Amino acid sequence: MKKRLKYWGWGYEGEGLSPRDRDALLSTLSGEFGIRGAGNGRIPAIEEIILPVARLQPPAGIASICTQEPYERVLHSFGQSQPDSIRVFQADFAHAPDVVAYPRDESDIAAILEWAGDAGAALIPFGGGSSVVGGVTPDIGDEYTATIVLDMTRMNRVLEVDRVSRAALIQGGARGPELEAGLKPHGMTLRHFPQSFRLATLGGWIATRSGGHFATLYTHIDDLVESVSMVTPAGRMESRRLPGSGAGPSPDRLMIGSEGALGIITQAWVRLQGRVRFKATAGFRFPDFIQAAGAVRAISQAGLFPANVRIVDGVELQANGAGDGSFTLLVVSFESADHPVGPWMDRAEECALDHGGSPDVDWRANPDAHLRGAVGAWRDAFIKMPYNREILTPLGIISDTFESAITWDRFETFYHNVRETTIRAIREVTGNEGAVSCRFSHSYPDGPAPYFAFHCATDPNSMLKQWWEVKRAVSDAVIDHGGTITHHHAVGRDHQPWYSKQRPGLFGDVLARAKQHLDPKGILNPGVLVHDEPGQNQPDTTPEQASRVTVK
Amino acid sequence: MKKRLKYWGWGYEGEGLSPRDRDALLSTLSGEFGIRGAGNGRIPAIEEIILPVARLQPPAGIASICTQEPYERVLHSFGQSQPDSIRVFQADFAHAPDVVAYPRDESDIAAILEWAGDAGAALIPFGGGSSVVGGVTPDIGDEYTATIVLDMTRMNRVLEVDRVSRAALIQGGARGPELEAGLKPHGMTLRHFPQSFRLATLGGWIATRSGGHFATLYTHIDDLVESVSMVTPAGRMESRRLPGSGAGPSPDRLMIGSEGALGIITQAWVRLQGRVRFKATAGFRFPDFIQAAGAVRAISQAGLFPANVRIVDGVELQANGAGDGSFTLLVVSFESADHPVGPWMDRAEECALDHGGSPDVDWRANPDAHLRGAVGAWRDAFIKMPYNREILTPLGIISDTFESAITWDRFETFYHNVRETTIRAIREVTGNEGAVSCRFSHSYPDGPAPYFAFHCATDPNSMLKQWWEVKRAVSDAVIDHGGTITHHHAVGRDHQPWYSKQRPGLFGDVLARAKQHLDPKGILNPGVLVHDEPGQNQPDTTPEQASRVTVK
Repeated sequence: MKKRLKYWGWGYEGEGLSPRDRDALLSTLSGEFGIRGAGNGRIPAIEEIILPVARLQPPAGIASICTQEPYERVLHSFGQSQPDSIRVFQADFAHAPDVVAYPRDESDIAAILEWAGDAGAALIPFGGGSSVVGGVTPDIGDEYTATIVLDMTRMNRVLEVDRVSRAALIQGGARGPELEAGLKPHGMTLRHFPQSFRLATLGGWIATRSGGHFATLYTHIDDLVESVSMVTPAGRMESRRLPGSGAGPSPDRLMIGSEGALGIITQAWVRLQGRVRFKATAGFRFPDFIQAAGAVRAISQAGLFPANVRIVDGVELQANGAGDGSFTLLVVSFESADHPVGPWMDRAEECALDHGGSPDVDWRANPDAHLRGAVGAWRDAFIKMPYNREILTPLGIISDTFESAITWDRFETFYHNVRETTIRAIREVTGNEGAVSCRFSHSYPDGPAPYFAFHCATDPNSMLKQWWEVKRAVSDAVIDHGGTITHHHAVGRDHQPWYSKQRPGLFGDVLARAKQHLDPKGILNPGVLVHDEPGQNQPDTTPEQASRVTVK
Repeated sequence: MKKRLKYWGWGYEGEGLSPRDRDALLSTLSGEFGIRGAGNGRIPAIEEIILPVARLQPPAGIASICTQEPYERVLHSFGQSQPDSIRVFQADFAHAPDVVAYPRDESDIAAILEWAGDAGAALIPFGGGSSVVGGVTPDIGDEYTATIVLDMTRMNRVLEVDRVSRAALIQGGARGPELEAGLKPHGMTLRHFPQSFRLATLGGWIATRSGGHFATLYTHIDDLVESVSMVTPAGRMESRRLPGSGAGPSPDRLMIGSEGALGIITQAWVRLQGRVRFKATAGFRFPDFIQAAGAVRAISQAGLFPANVRIVDGVELQANGAGDGSFTLLVVSFESADHPVGPWMDRAEECALDHGGSPDVDWRANPDAHLRGAVGAWRDAFIKMPYNREILTPLGIISDTFESAITWDRFETFYHNVRETTIRAIREVTGNEGAVSCRFSHSYPDGPAPYFAFHCATDPNSMLKQWWEVKRAVSDAVIDHGGTITHHHAVGRDHQPWYSKQRPGLFGDVLARAKQHLDPKGILNPGVLVHDEPGQNQPDTTPEQASRVTVK
């Protein structure tokens, strides 16, 4: 029997933390941070879940690719956000989709779109279901006659590999391991390894501007896309396959980040790389996060483009059994399919030492440095992190993250304010002390992408409400201090209020116009990205205001 | 007296080829390629040019920033395309703008936009006037009551420099030398050096997706933009200043490449770099262009990111006095503000030698290798090239270029077909043999940006018509063989028919919708990018067709 995805948490049935890892997690949270759960939730069995009667039946021509089986409706009721997790354990499935459709090709998609449009049903595109921002949660109110989830995972093939140009045409529903397996015989790799790698799909990555393996240079999937094909209710859109272009605004960049609100990404040509042959990883300890950030800035501005240059603060190391809380860890690594990376690492090391770092593991003596010391310990924990939540949510413990990006000149203020806001919000909302940590997931010459994690015990009866109160406070702080509401998690439903503040008002109007044209009945992923009529947004500032500000 | 721009060619009055350079140019074209001019055109004096009576007078509140002086109307009648040049020498100024406005700030721009909209006048944004694709040529038919050119060059200041993040806020009307002068005291540089550097403006570069100095990695200005401010008839739009983001489709990428059709780019935060301290340049000779292209592919796919990796074919070297036509030259250079670049060059050199290159100048022995040998000779000629046309056009000799980009797998077919089409079109149209050459202006891991140049003698009485016949043939070939109609010259008016074929039809509709919202009266740069009503474009293929194609 084919392995099934869990409907209550990360990954496939049968996977999760070992009893030993579970005990270590709980003992660390309790012992180091005083975070103890008071809940006693348990996974609701499929049979116990009350699903609403399906309001829509697929027509004969489509029935064979549709299902209304309870497991499928349950699985497609949520993504992987903290509120999703809380609601699963509350067995809150009143918004379950009426139908789940598994198209085999673009013709199927066109037929499903037409059916949905005619029926007045909403259509939610679904890839790996790994959205942590409510992007695939079909809780859309009662303006639609029904909800159809369009699961893309049957369109999962590598259609063509061009070894000369190092590019491949891959279907939108291919998960990370599937597409890498298709590329491996050609000696090629996409090298896009977000934490969602095992579950998420290429189309989902493109739709959400996923952030992957590389901490510098090619950070977002945006940079790896050569052309995109999208099927919309208004027809098909395919951009030309080009290594670069200057012909008008980029059509790819309209589709990249469109989060299922403008169309279904059916396939894409993506840029590949040779498989890594040379690599080096080094770790350095710093007494202080800000000081370590200075080293990251130096390395990022040196033009070395490391595969990885991350810092992880003491709290996050401690929470994951990779440190005692007394130091910040900087991990830097270089990888190449072409040449030894020693000269690159030499210079990065100089930057780290110049900024007061001390070696954690010596990269020259340890080709496997990425598996050793605090570096290796944190890496092990990182891989298991997504499994923590199914342990913690039923105990009433929030385990969540949020990420942003900010220019270096504003980073310190941003960091201190956002961190303190999070600590304070947890205290005020829950009455408990939480654990708040920060790392850099990516870094650019002009600024880092700080990634915050927080844990706290809640009142299990108000867990969802308390989560929202904390979320609102930290999101306000992120926007008020100049950051982006998301660096790579996407907007989804959860970030929509802050996205509306962040984007230029007139750009919101343009997006709404684009949606009116491509999705005239407004059936695609309602509530995501576009929820305003054009003209409701305000221009950001008047030219008069801007002139006063900038012409000094 | 302030130096004035030439209205008949490149650069400022008093500049141009020396008599000796002029003689060398003509003697090479005649002696090596048999191209001899038959025309005897001359520069029309301002007094001789018949300007139509201005149809519009600026209102009192704006009059002080407007001019209707003949030199200004003449200067703003053309850009720097081949047809522009031909028409200047034909003294064809019937489409001269009625008014030229020089706004000082965004308030001025808003006032001018309002005036133009009320008056039913078209408004043409103008930076350096260096468009080679008719992007600023206000020849827009008779649907408008008048034409106003908005010259941005009074908004030319560096407003703020953030050395920590390596970024600066610069006004849209700043020319290359002005903005670099503002950055130099801070030890910073934008390092965007297109051939238009001396004349063109930051806003113009952003509006046209300019391609600059770097042949790899940061090729287009797109990559250097941190945020953009744009004033549109519908209001002001300003994107948030972020090093990276995953929040919906990028608002910057709608404004980048908008070619004055959606709004006026008034200022932008751009990413800077430290001034170069280490550099190395090497040259290699190859017997064959295709073989040299193989070396460029190897270097581009090695992850080395050279500042420059160009090949120049024998014809182009010969036409510029930098070779005898018997070899293709590969130039590769590395530059860094941070570290010596020897290890990078070592590996690039291996790639060049592996592919059969032989050294032109030894980079180890010659720190000034970029000034020596064929490398140095071509570099000298490259700098003077834009001045050639004012010599050649009056003789009836076409001197033009076009550029594209194509993936490596299709490059050879593309190159041979486009080159042969150009040679054949010249022969068929003019009855003469031309000189057709190719180089790479930029290179990506997945493909090069081939840059073609051609010279040919025409019938001086039909020069414009003959140019269009050749242009149509080569543009059809570029599109038919999978390329982009422009890699970095932009679309303008000249490329519009092929741009309409290249872009996804539904994306054309979305652009038209965006324009309807931002420029409801359709006054901005008419005929550029958007000339269709939404819904007139056809979807590229139906899903059924696509399914048949891709699901094998």
